[in-house]
Amino acid sequence: MWPEMHLFADGIPDRARTTALRAAAEPLDGPRVAGLARIAADLGVWLIPGSVCELGDDGELFNTAVVMSPDGEPAASYRKIFPWRPTEPWTPGDRLCVFDIDGVGRFGLCICFDSWFPEVSRNLAWLGAETIINVVKTTTADRPQELVIARANAITQQVNFLSVNAAAPVGTGCSAAFGPQGEPLGHLDDSRPGTIRVVLSGDEVHRVRRQGTAGVTRPWAFFRPGDRPVDLPAYRGSIDPTTWNRD
Amino acid sequence: MWPEMHLFADGIPDRARTTALRAAAEPLDGPRVAGLARIAADLGVWLIPGSVCELGDDGELFNTAVVMSPDGEPAASYRKIFPWRPTEPWTPGDRLCVFDIDGVGRFGLCICFDSWFPEVSRNLAWLGAETIINVVKTTTADRPQELVIARANAITQQVNFLSVNAAAPVGTGCSAAFGPQGEPLGHLDDSRPGTIRVVLSGDEVHRVRRQGTAGVTRPWAFFRPGDRPVDLPAYRGSIDPTTWNRD
Repeated sequence: MWPEMHLFADGIPDRARTTALRAAAEPLDGPRVAGLARIAADLGVWLIPGSVCELGDDGELFNTAVVMSPDGEPAASYRKIFPWRPTEPWTPGDRLCVFDIDGVGRFGLCICFDSWFPEVSRNLAWLGAETIINVVKTTTADRPQELVIARANAITQQVNFLSVNAAAPVGTGCSAAFGPQGEPLGHLDDSRPGTIRVVLSGDEVHRVRRQGTAGVTRPWAFFRPGDRPVDLPAYRGSIDPTTWNRD
Repeated sequence: MWPEMHLFADGIPDRARTTALRAAAEPLDGPRVAGLARIAADLGVWLIPGSVCELGDDGELFNTAVVMSPDGEPAASYRKIFPWRPTEPWTPGDRLCVFDIDGVGRFGLCICFDSWFPEVSRNLAWLGAETIINVVKTTTADRPQELVIARANAITQQVNFLSVNAAAPVGTGCSAAFGPQGEPLGHLDDSRPGTIRVVLSGDEVHRVRRQGTAGVTRPWAFFRPGDRPVDLPAYRGSIDPTTWNRD
């Protein structure tokens, strides 16, 4: 698992960068993704090579996280819904993405600034994700805030949450992984390049949801028969008690 | 501003507690709230005496935060939407609450476990709250998680967020206030009773929204003309680009 746009030297947000990205953009059935899939197959691993610059059917540029299976197949892809505007040139994606690894569990994908919108993590967890993978390229001084958000996403959604940030000289590093009670599972202390090995447990996610955070708190078990929907005007929607609970 | 259920000795969650709460419950036009309003008038202050046990029209028990103006008037009330189940006997409330103090700004109310649902803070901020007041009575070992969530709510919503927890011997204390970049504005270090004096700035909330967290990040300025809605299946709703942006 690598950071956002790991294969693209797009450090300086100017017109030249956008020109370079456009020149490098390929559709997902192009040679870059095929090459990445071959690498996954050669190594026999699941591979998330960060996100890539995807050329859309209408010439759009998408920031797209891709997942390669050990069979050498593109297994999932996700277009960043919340580009970091106004700096980034990406057209926003329009759909959430979860994918399954047989015998392991369900994963949700998001990219960098997506994590600042709790709706993304909430909806990925609601769709069944036990682990949310956030590939990141944060170059700015708000990495400390982003780590608070990452941990809170793990706690509120009772999921594993992985914040995989680009290292120096491009990014501010400090990648981190949190478990479903917000417990640190692994981290890098600074911006230097490094590797984190994390053992994730879907069983632990479900145990925490059943027994509660700190043995007591169960947000995914809130609703009871007869409860009314919780109206949420910001979304012109609501939480439907009949579709909420899960463990 | 006092913690959740500050005037009620409801430490032990059993049938006797529910009986005692029912015996103490009053409608909001009862003598307890009138007495609290007189205290606010006598002192010439805005007063949030924690939350009270409200008797509903149909005999329900609500956990209701009340706000008294310096004129001695009940200025706002909010019924906890997410009681901490299964322990608490409260009927859930069904509406969000923001209120204005002329010349100061707009405030949103929430109670304890409400903070674990990012939807509550999001919707209060979307309704214009610059400061979110979370009155809390957390007695359990997940206060550290709650503080991470409080800070993340401040950061993601770019609001002031006040987590006012009950002290020992009932609660775990560690009350804290965070500004719109998640910066600590004041806190108590442990469970001992104490007072925090915080100077809050609505101007700072709007400055951070305009200039960005760490001078760069502006989640409330995300959308542009022509953007499509972001579909959020968990709410059977969406983020509507035309009603989102604010500063």
